[in-house]
Amino acid sequence: MIPEDHPRYRSLKVRERLARCAREGIVAMEGLAAHGRGEAFDYLLGERTTECARHACRTAAALLVTARHPVISVNGNTAALAAREIGELQRASGAGVEVSLFHRTEERIHRITDLLEEHGVEVLTGEAERLIPLSHDRAWCLREGIGAADVVLVPLEDGDRCAALRSMGKQVIAIDLNPLSRTARMATLTIVDEVTRALPHVTDACGTLGAEECARLIQTMDNTYLLRAAIQEMRERLTHALD
Amino acid sequence: MIPEDHPRYRSLKVRERLARCAREGIVAMEGLAAHGRGEAFDYLLGERTTECARHACRTAAALLVTARHPVISVNGNTAALAAREIGELQRASGAGVEVSLFHRTEERIHRITDLLEEHGVEVLTGEAERLIPLSHDRAWCLREGIGAADVVLVPLEDGDRCAALRSMGKQVIAIDLNPLSRTARMATLTIVDEVTRALPHVTDACGTLGAEECARLIQTMDNTYLLRAAIQEMRERLTHALD
Repeated sequence: MIPEDHPRYRSLKVRERLARCAREGIVAMEGLAAHGRGEAFDYLLGERTTECARHACRTAAALLVTARHPVISVNGNTAALAAREIGELQRASGAGVEVSLFHRTEERIHRITDLLEEHGVEVLTGEAERLIPLSHDRAWCLREGIGAADVVLVPLEDGDRCAALRSMGKQVIAIDLNPLSRTARMATLTIVDEVTRALPHVTDACGTLGAEECARLIQTMDNTYLLRAAIQEMRERLTHALD
Repeated sequence: MIPEDHPRYRSLKVRERLARCAREGIVAMEGLAAHGRGEAFDYLLGERTTECARHACRTAAALLVTARHPVISVNGNTAALAAREIGELQRASGAGVEVSLFHRTEERIHRITDLLEEHGVEVLTGEAERLIPLSHDRAWCLREGIGAADVVLVPLEDGDRCAALRSMGKQVIAIDLNPLSRTARMATLTIVDEVTRALPHVTDACGTLGAEECARLIQTMDNTYLLRAAIQEMRERLTHALD
């Protein structure tokens, strides 16, 4: 039991949930270390959604609601952390949800699908095919899911896979706390924020943006600017950290 | 198998060792996430021991060799990563070694004690008591170990526990890659470096420092200066990240 008076209670509870999901086979061991890396960058962001990240969330909503065939790609960490938030975003955006794993086994796919469905997510199912130009298991996806998508939201994605999806002509929205990562730099749009904080902002914006506002957000989208702004936030926080 | 020419060979091998130790019950699942967090800060440091960290290692050695009753507090991650280095530091400094766990079970205490003993560490044993002013299992320690220590070296420690040890009037030396953490700020002295890189520097200094040099290092000790210097290294690295 983590004592509720611990100053890092929330962060420790999240870590505890991931550890439980690792024991249940939903989160990979490598996913635990990856989460820790994200936590460090979140620390530098001040564990809050910055103005720039909020703007990125609105732009992500604009891309999703104007897409022909939007799909949310969900891995073990995302399912463990944000199954409910994924369900809410699905209902607000009309996007399909596909389970897509770096460390892919049929058993993990089933467990994660069950977890998502328990939280009200409608999960795409079917026979996966090797459609993504990558070696190994990361090539697999559903023809009618990520295969047919024009816009893919990939929270917590691997950099290689992000690049491969881009090479297929898809627009990729990443949620990644590390603004230096290959994922963050390869994506069409990167939300530098923690996934459970970011998703509700995207969901809210899906319900409120008009067509003109969507067009304006997409026309003015500048990912390098967003990444530089996130790095600047981290630098400033480091500067005043010991004041 | 990780190829030896992989640019991130060392980091990947370390992660592999931790995952193995997690399966064996030595490292807590939460310890994997904590390790990932350290990796992110180490990346920002350039994965090297800075000049300031080297100075902090010498000051740590001065505190240990002049202490009345120095104790090294070892948790699962430290044992998994640095059992050999802990043994070498123990022999050079004469410090006691006590196993002290955030996620405490008797079984983990025994496994970690066995691992340390296999690497030549003499581990303090006995009946633990709730001597540290904290809720939760973190209150437990040995009366003749951490309970009686005037200087405690705590690699990879929790911030709350660091603060509680300070409130007991002990000098606390932390090894922590995050210069913003509560541990880093609460400690008497913080070595901002990776634990397996830092420990051999402390060990070397234990064997070479004279009494005058020890007194000078302790008199001029300034933890805020050391943390600011580490932060400055990270800021510079962030500045050039997208160049």
